[in-house]
Amino acid sequence: MDREPFDHVWIHARLATFDPRVPAPCGVLEDHAVAVRGDTIAAVLPASAPEVRSHRGAVTDCGGELVTPGFIDCHTHTVWGGSRAAEWELRLAGVPYTEIAKRGGGILSTVRATRGLSEEELFQSAVPRVQSLIREGVTCVEIKSGYGLTVDDELKMLRVARRVGERLNVDVSPTLLAAHAVPPEFAGRADDYVSLIVNEMIPAVAREKLADAVDVFCESIAFTSAQCDRIFSAAKAHGLAIKGHVEQITNSHGAELVARHGGWSADHLEHLDDAGIAAMAESGTVAVLLPGAFYFLREKQKPPVEKLRAAGVSLAVASDLNPGTSPLASIRLAMNMACVLYGLSPEETLAGVTREAAKALGRGDRLGTLEVGKRADFLVWDVAHPAEIVCQLGVTPLVGRVVSGKSCDA
Amino acid sequence: MDREPFDHVWIHARLATFDPRVPAPCGVLEDHAVAVRGDTIAAVLPASAPEVRSHRGAVTDCGGELVTPGFIDCHTHTVWGGSRAAEWELRLAGVPYTEIAKRGGGILSTVRATRGLSEEELFQSAVPRVQSLIREGVTCVEIKSGYGLTVDDELKMLRVARRVGERLNVDVSPTLLAAHAVPPEFAGRADDYVSLIVNEMIPAVAREKLADAVDVFCESIAFTSAQCDRIFSAAKAHGLAIKGHVEQITNSHGAELVARHGGWSADHLEHLDDAGIAAMAESGTVAVLLPGAFYFLREKQKPPVEKLRAAGVSLAVASDLNPGTSPLASIRLAMNMACVLYGLSPEETLAGVTREAAKALGRGDRLGTLEVGKRADFLVWDVAHPAEIVCQLGVTPLVGRVVSGKSCDA
Ligand SMILES: [Zn+2]
Ligand SMILES: [Zn+2]
Repeated sequence: MDREPFDHVWIHARLATFDPRVPAPCGVLEDHAVAVRGDTIAAVLPASAPEVRSHRGAVTDCGGELVTPGFIDCHTHTVWGGSRAAEWELRLAGVPYTEIAKRGGGILSTVRATRGLSEEELFQSAVPRVQSLIREGVTCVEIKSGYGLTVDDELKMLRVARRVGERLNVDVSPTLLAAHAVPPEFAGRADDYVSLIVNEMIPAVAREKLADAVDVFCESIAFTSAQCDRIFSAAKAHGLAIKGHVEQITNSHGAELVARHGGWSADHLEHLDDAGIAAMAESGTVAVLLPGAFYFLREKQKPPVEKLRAAGVSLAVASDLNPGTSPLASIRLAMNMACVLYGLSPEETLAGVTREAAKALGRGDRLGTLEVGKRADFLVWDVAHPAEIVCQLGVTPLVGRVVSGKSCDA
Repeated sequence: MDREPFDHVWIHARLATFDPRVPAPCGVLEDHAVAVRGDTIAAVLPASAPEVRSHRGAVTDCGGELVTPGFIDCHTHTVWGGSRAAEWELRLAGVPYTEIAKRGGGILSTVRATRGLSEEELFQSAVPRVQSLIREGVTCVEIKSGYGLTVDDELKMLRVARRVGERLNVDVSPTLLAAHAVPPEFAGRADDYVSLIVNEMIPAVAREKLADAVDVFCESIAFTSAQCDRIFSAAKAHGLAIKGHVEQITNSHGAELVARHGGWSADHLEHLDDAGIAAMAESGTVAVLLPGAFYFLREKQKPPVEKLRAAGVSLAVASDLNPGTSPLASIRLAMNMACVLYGLSPEETLAGVTREAAKALGRGDRLGTLEVGKRADFLVWDVAHPAEIVCQLGVTPLVGRVVSGKSCDA
């Protein structure tokens, strides 16, 4: 007897494929089926197709519900120690950031707390954050280091990221962000710290295969474009992809630098100029929009969304989950804010956490759409219209999750 | 043998009492105990007090965790039919509201959908919304009618609100908001609709005890101050409290009207002027801030928070949960937005969903603080600092809930 061609078929779905070849909004195919073999989508067919009707293996009837690709949160700092809530209270009361830093607050307070925790303690503190993302439909999450800032502590954070992927039902894309801040031991000697990143951290991370990519904070208050250039060159020499936190507070031309190196994504982009947009369009670098930080920091300058769109730059949306500037373990809140604060459409936002976010992690060939050959990560939603997924907060209308071809509880 | 004076004692808690007589921020009492008899707080004592040590009944050790009063969401439109997500998508795409209304959108689309559902159907659609609030610590929720706009449909909505309180573990404060919009049957005859409210709806609601209060939308696009005055007079004649949606879009002097009638609360208040503030301060009317609608509608004009504070007006915060302008079934998101968008402190925000929200529902004698005689509704939080409850979204650090003296799963 022949083996069945499919292990499991999900039928009677409104498939929001986000397949660019499907012209309907969100690439919707009405009353279709997704057929899975192993962990991979083996066919996308009309529900009435003979292959569907002759299938004798497992079947799930979606009852006409909307099915989207699994969500990808392509920019997070999910692993950290300590809390910055008391600092936030001071900031709301008008205490200036310099004074907060003097009192021991700011990013370096998170560095202190993170260094003080073991790998297991850091993992435990990250679990509820990741579970919160999973409950909203996240099947792949990027996790950055950047609160260790020593060889050992950066590797420790990346091992926690790996452990998240091993122990929780989520795919993790780990990123080395050693160039997040100049650590106190290197105060006034940023170039020496960059040498440590280039000569020790990047080689160690590459050797242990602890990260897919190397990220930098290219900014007036962090690392210069020249320092980031050194880091990117070392990353590429070790076979790691690159990406950058750029143009968040000032235009430091970081996006151009990332684009010149063929980087996966340039993130934040509030102060991006036309030259940066052109460079990103040219290199195919994804624009990752992080409206949570914009909201939480009460920023006024928005990223040039209309110009990015006009230039054909891919737009992704992410939570930027972190303790200081975007404490939201919620991809749906980031999606809602991308619409309300940045003017994306619900459809662009949904593409921004699926198809475009996959590209931002260098995984566009395997994740992000409902197409044959993609990993079978998808979500079943009890909604009449795709925009409902983005519009309402608090209640998550997710009624089914499939990860690597396996049904999970929603 | 004497009966024990307490049924259950929660010990070793950091009690955020919000008792105005306790001078510490949030009225915090370190290492204290809450002793409960029946559904009521019978004592608030140091953990080492003899009465605590001699107690032989049920004991819960809070292990030093923070305990706050149960949260009160004092302004919601939780019961509705249909969805406005597709309309939102049009709005984001720049389609003007008049055009949306012409295509059948806006509040009247929710009225149509709500009229079309049975009491049971409306209840079922409200359940996940209320559960979302409960999961965040809400123990009391106000629920308004206002999408029925006929005698039968308004009463139907209020019966759904009552059913929410009967079937779910939450206290409901129901409000008649028949003056939410002029129904299509009365187009151009708003005064006749007001007569229906005054002569039929209010008497029927009072007779069946279906509401605690009567609310109005006093606004250029809704009801005039003179019409609201008629409604308030009728409400008072039938022993119902009053409150109002006022000064959201324009200054229509609705807050003064509410204050003149001794109303519980004036809500929204973006365009409130000094005379309105003075009137509210004089009458003790609570200012209910609704930053969710401000966010979702991309408003620019904020309520005069500093002036309200200076005048000694009570500030409450609520979700305004509704399908069109504040689709957030999340009191914590509203709290976070009250800080980020309106500049409240985390402490003011916590008071705004406890002590001050209780006043906004006329229940300040029974709810809102951890004091002897108050109902034993309280929450146990795994946080180092009260601001953490407000700062981080997605993850809710709630580890215990006590409702009417009974422990529930968090
Ligand atoms: Zn970031
Ligand atoms: Zn309202």
